[in-house]
Amino acid sequence: MPVSIADTTDADLLVNDSSTMPAILTDTSDADLPVKDSSTVSPIITDAPDADLPVKNFSTTPAITTDTSNTDQPIKESNIDVLIIGAGPAGYMAAIWFARLGINARIIDKRGTKIFTGQADGLQPRALEVFNSFGFAHRPLKEASVGFESCYYEPDANGHIHKVARKVEGVVGISRFNGSVIHQGRIEQWFTDAIDEFSNNTLQVERPLLPESLVVDESKIHDQSAYPITVTVKKLSDDDSVPDQFGHKLENGLYRQFAGDQEREFATPPESREIIHAKYVLGTDGAHSWVRKQLGIVPEGESTDYIWGVLDIVPITNLPDIRKRCAIHSVSDGSIMIIPREGDLVRFYIQLKETAREPEDGSPPGTKARVDRSKITPELILERARKILHPYTLDVAETQWFTGYQIGQRVAPKFEKWERVFIAGDACHTHSPKAGQGMNISMMDTFNLAWKIAHVVQGKASPAILSTYEDERRQVAKDLIDYDFKLSRLFSGKPGTGDGTISTDEFRDFIDKGSAFTTGCTVDYGASALVSKPPREDSNIKYASPLATELFIGMRFPDSRLVMQCDGRPWFIHDKMPSDGRWRLIDFSGDIKSSPTLAAQLVAVGHYFSSPESFIAKYTPADERVDSVIELILVHASDANNVEWDDFPLAFRSRDSRRVMDYWKIYGDMESLHGGTGDAYEKLGIKRDVGALVVVRPDGYVSMVTTPDMRGINEVGSFFDGFLIPATR
Amino acid sequence: MPVSIADTTDADLLVNDSSTMPAILTDTSDADLPVKDSSTVSPIITDAPDADLPVKNFSTTPAITTDTSNTDQPIKESNIDVLIIGAGPAGYMAAIWFARLGINARIIDKRGTKIFTGQADGLQPRALEVFNSFGFAHRPLKEASVGFESCYYEPDANGHIHKVARKVEGVVGISRFNGSVIHQGRIEQWFTDAIDEFSNNTLQVERPLLPESLVVDESKIHDQSAYPITVTVKKLSDDDSVPDQFGHKLENGLYRQFAGDQEREFATPPESREIIHAKYVLGTDGAHSWVRKQLGIVPEGESTDYIWGVLDIVPITNLPDIRKRCAIHSVSDGSIMIIPREGDLVRFYIQLKETAREPEDGSPPGTKARVDRSKITPELILERARKILHPYTLDVAETQWFTGYQIGQRVAPKFEKWERVFIAGDACHTHSPKAGQGMNISMMDTFNLAWKIAHVVQGKASPAILSTYEDERRQVAKDLIDYDFKLSRLFSGKPGTGDGTISTDEFRDFIDKGSAFTTGCTVDYGASALVSKPPREDSNIKYASPLATELFIGMRFPDSRLVMQCDGRPWFIHDKMPSDGRWRLIDFSGDIKSSPTLAAQLVAVGHYFSSPESFIAKYTPADERVDSVIELILVHASDANNVEWDDFPLAFRSRDSRRVMDYWKIYGDMESLHGGTGDAYEKLGIKRDVGALVVVRPDGYVSMVTTPDMRGINEVGSFFDGFLIPATR
Repeated sequence: MPVSIADTTDADLLVNDSSTMPAILTDTSDADLPVKDSSTVSPIITDAPDADLPVKNFSTTPAITTDTSNTDQPIKESNIDVLIIGAGPAGYMAAIWFARLGINARIIDKRGTKIFTGQADGLQPRALEVFNSFGFAHRPLKEASVGFESCYYEPDANGHIHKVARKVEGVVGISRFNGSVIHQGRIEQWFTDAIDEFSNNTLQVERPLLPESLVVDESKIHDQSAYPITVTVKKLSDDDSVPDQFGHKLENGLYRQFAGDQEREFATPPESREIIHAKYVLGTDGAHSWVRKQLGIVPEGESTDYIWGVLDIVPITNLPDIRKRCAIHSVSDGSIMIIPREGDLVRFYIQLKETAREPEDGSPPGTKARVDRSKITPELILERARKILHPYTLDVAETQWFTGYQIGQRVAPKFEKWERVFIAGDACHTHSPKAGQGMNISMMDTFNLAWKIAHVVQGKASPAILSTYEDERRQVAKDLIDYDFKLSRLFSGKPGTGDGTISTDEFRDFIDKGSAFTTGCTVDYGASALVSKPPREDSNIKYASPLATELFIGMRFPDSRLVMQCDGRPWFIHDKMPSDGRWRLIDFSGDIKSSPTLAAQLVAVGHYFSSPESFIAKYTPADERVDSVIELILVHASDANNVEWDDFPLAFRSRDSRRVMDYWKIYGDMESLHGGTGDAYEKLGIKRDVGALVVVRPDGYVSMVTTPDMRGINEVGSFFDGFLIPATR
Repeated sequence: MPVSIADTTDADLLVNDSSTMPAILTDTSDADLPVKDSSTVSPIITDAPDADLPVKNFSTTPAITTDTSNTDQPIKESNIDVLIIGAGPAGYMAAIWFARLGINARIIDKRGTKIFTGQADGLQPRALEVFNSFGFAHRPLKEASVGFESCYYEPDANGHIHKVARKVEGVVGISRFNGSVIHQGRIEQWFTDAIDEFSNNTLQVERPLLPESLVVDESKIHDQSAYPITVTVKKLSDDDSVPDQFGHKLENGLYRQFAGDQEREFATPPESREIIHAKYVLGTDGAHSWVRKQLGIVPEGESTDYIWGVLDIVPITNLPDIRKRCAIHSVSDGSIMIIPREGDLVRFYIQLKETAREPEDGSPPGTKARVDRSKITPELILERARKILHPYTLDVAETQWFTGYQIGQRVAPKFEKWERVFIAGDACHTHSPKAGQGMNISMMDTFNLAWKIAHVVQGKASPAILSTYEDERRQVAKDLIDYDFKLSRLFSGKPGTGDGTISTDEFRDFIDKGSAFTTGCTVDYGASALVSKPPREDSNIKYASPLATELFIGMRFPDSRLVMQCDGRPWFIHDKMPSDGRWRLIDFSGDIKSSPTLAAQLVAVGHYFSSPESFIAKYTPADERVDSVIELILVHASDANNVEWDDFPLAFRSRDSRRVMDYWKIYGDMESLHGGTGDAYEKLGIKRDVGALVVVRPDGYVSMVTTPDMRGINEVGSFFDGFLIPATR
């Protein structure tokens, strides 16, 4: 029996905290309904009220509250640079940047424990590249299920599903990594381990801490030395920091409410309160973001009628492709998406109903009905899955987790206020989980933002760069919602040729065309102070300089294999571009051994950078290494047998006051004695007799491309002059 | 000024503990001389008396001592399966096997601390493969210096050195790993972390614990339930567990003696004594092995006249290839080997004298003189290096460690006694460090031995398999000594064409030919109960079956890239053959979709293994997974578009009582949609229309190759019958 649909009167009771489950299991925030069964409470996932819906038990708090005095307890008070509210993947990604860069940051979460099962599970190649840039990509490679193939099943003439296509998963060659799947708890553990290492255990999630109020002193927002934001937080008791989950014995994603919400009565008084003065606040607190509510930002968009269940099970089945990603359309029982998981687990996304019922509560006609998620059980989802999979069989050896959701798509109209308080992740965008994008795009939001905040906090850059966050990431969110809207319709639609049906050919074609998008590697940031290219009308048009025709400005610098000049070791260049806060200026000098012009250019460039007048010297504090703000890298295109380490200007080799050479900045796009290299110029569209000068941002995106001569150097200098602040020397 | 050479009368005072520095910095045990300067004692490396030389301050203990009662303290007593004495790389490698396999083992060391600088540093590709099989090969990939090129410098007509050749380092394609260099302390840390993980922190080095006596009850050595070996150990005070080092401020490898030796007076009484009853004892206690002395085994061989110094420095030099491995012969100042290390470090091996002086102590003519190592200083070594490197310059930004040694080569005639007490590593073989083999071959000794002991302790196999240890590893040691003998002569010799000179052409040719040997990947074990091939006359002749002409029996199963049938993921097959104690039976079934014969064979084989009468069932305990002793793997050669998961017999797919399929045993040697696969049959010399059945040992070496049909299965059954013990079911 399909799930029943109930009214919307108790919508506030059934919400998800998407900070713990960004996107891939995000209920899009308006599907939450009354509770019937509350016999079991499973203490895993926290919850937050939905700021976007009318609520019954507590008022919609105005954007800024100031009351921090309703307790008799002594109040601790402290200043920090950044406060991160919400320890989901987006929060962790911000934290790892701050840990890596030594920023005085804290991260709090109102949940008492980490998550252990279920939730988001999809990691796109770009996310894995970013993990690699923080040094832990080997962990998904070892632990996760990695996608290499996908299969499509559709009805045959008898209405039985059968395999119609076997296709490559992802895009061959776009990244060293393939999309991988593992439960969110492991991913958060990798972050935790890396953050511990970078911060020497000083930056750790503080929990359960609930923010109570956020006040901004607008008179101070232009003063970089001030702490204009005041957040009061209270420490919850353990009892109040567990979520209130539906009455299933299994872990699941169906929650009633979280006792630890801001306006709730607490079973026990908070243990203590604290006042935190911060320069910046990041709200990575999920689809029902409290921070977003404080800013008065209301997401725009709406829900669909498509209702889906999710099962994480160890299946017993004769479907031969159960360990591949499968998209299955049945004639009339709905669709399934199969995502193999780590170990023996498989995640099933199972369509439960084609449309929700009309609401029965007297809502105006056209109001979308909500699923009564309390009625969703694993048995019910499994029963539906069996119908869709027929004639293949499905039994379950073990169920680890389940949930249900109604697809909706929303984007926040603003991602920040005052360029001081930012929201990211599910707080900014919610959508269906099926493209496997949610957690990824949430992490990439803060990957985009946190280094910029760090730059400003460290006095390296003007606060003006912070406006690029919303410009860059809101476009990505809109693209995602657009993609998800089309995908959801095609996936949830009934296959056929008549009215109200969808074409499976169109579906497969859409997936094919969208596979580059879903790798995360095609994100293309628009023109700004940080991205030097012509403004564009259409965000889908990529821009490359004629100097590097395959190196698109605003997109991530692609990986290639280069040979370290000093020792002949081949490297994936990404491995030498860690996320350490540095800008990179890459001089593709061309074949300096064949062209006297290029050789002379390189000598001039080297001479410039050896001078104390260079812009690198200007932006680098006197007590720091000369490569600490901008790392100068050389990639030549001369033959390995024809070029020696000391053929290059000292600016690329020597930057240590001890006279020890720096051997690690010069690469050749040349054949290694062990092979497998020598095609980087070609892949980037750079001519060996011309070369190019490339600026790469600390997050790995291409800022500009120009000529590898003094004219180009001057252009790069002007580019940096646009936002970097000269160091006091 | 070259180092002075003194007499041999105090030879006992200047010894190395090669358990802490196997091979690459091993003094070969007879070069130890009197001490003049003792102002500074550096508490890093321990030491042990040399059992092989006449000693002055204490007697040469007879093989077995029984006195365990010379203390009033209460004596703890316990039974364990295996006691490892000596926590250097060989000891750690044994420990990781026992941790991985859940064997009740302990590892003790008399040193109070780990090492932090210097010592051995070379990791050959095979060692990295083994690290990979224990799950930590990513650590050297991240941390170590990896060798890809080497350069040769020789005198020009003016007597100035200049580069004469640039060559590939190692052998292209022989392994996924290249030879890597990092200091021994890091390697021991990786072991420690992995052992902690495998053993859940229960197997940890106990230190400082000094063994005092070893008694074997010969009446019990054939009783597998007995604990025939009794070892008394005493806990040292911290003061007594530090080494007595020469009077340099720097860490170095020049020791006088270790206060904590068995027959010494202790500054403080031992904290406690303990009696350990063990089934097996491993002596991995270095070149001056106490265990070896207890067994009465005396190494055979002798020292040469070649005297070398070692410097670990951060160099300042204009030698352009300083970050490549360089072999440099000067006209008359000796030779240098340059080994780039992790970070900015470089290790220099520098020839100090061409010949040692005649001894001045009245020794018989022909007695080799010893270096007075107390006279060796970093300044002296550097001075010599500068002469050799001229006209290139060499300055030092930082010296981290140094030592000096005289080359010698020795092998123990026996590696065990009663098949109960074993020695391994430097206790068995010592030689020069220059081939970078010592630590590797030491680790590979216990990698060969420990799983066999585990098999016997677990009741899986007959104790008869233990004799293969000495057979297999002593041959390797002899091959190494032979190689080292020739290399030392060519490297230490004066280049030229006249009498008493060596040909540098011959030197380079020797290195070229030996590069496969130094990868560690060409070790070839002889015929035995564990290696099914014809006996051979010459250990250099490899043997392959006509069924798999490039798969040599007795050698390690080479890596290749296969595609997992169930999900299309390409795998390096080594990544799916971890060191977990299991035998592997790999059915290269051929192209079953093109050959009805092969298909029928596979059905028959599957039928056999689905039966409770199969030898896999016979050797597997009823309460364990069916793949816990012998893992059955299928590698077909059919086209990916032509073959489905359920085309294969259930024996290869189903082995779980819950009816969950085992998806992880079937591979195709087929093109992955992402490319890069499909050549494994060809590389192994297996015909796609014939196939082969391959048995691989738990340590990854090929035991046998036969036909992939019931005749072959019966042969494999007989092979296992030769040493496996049927499980009680």
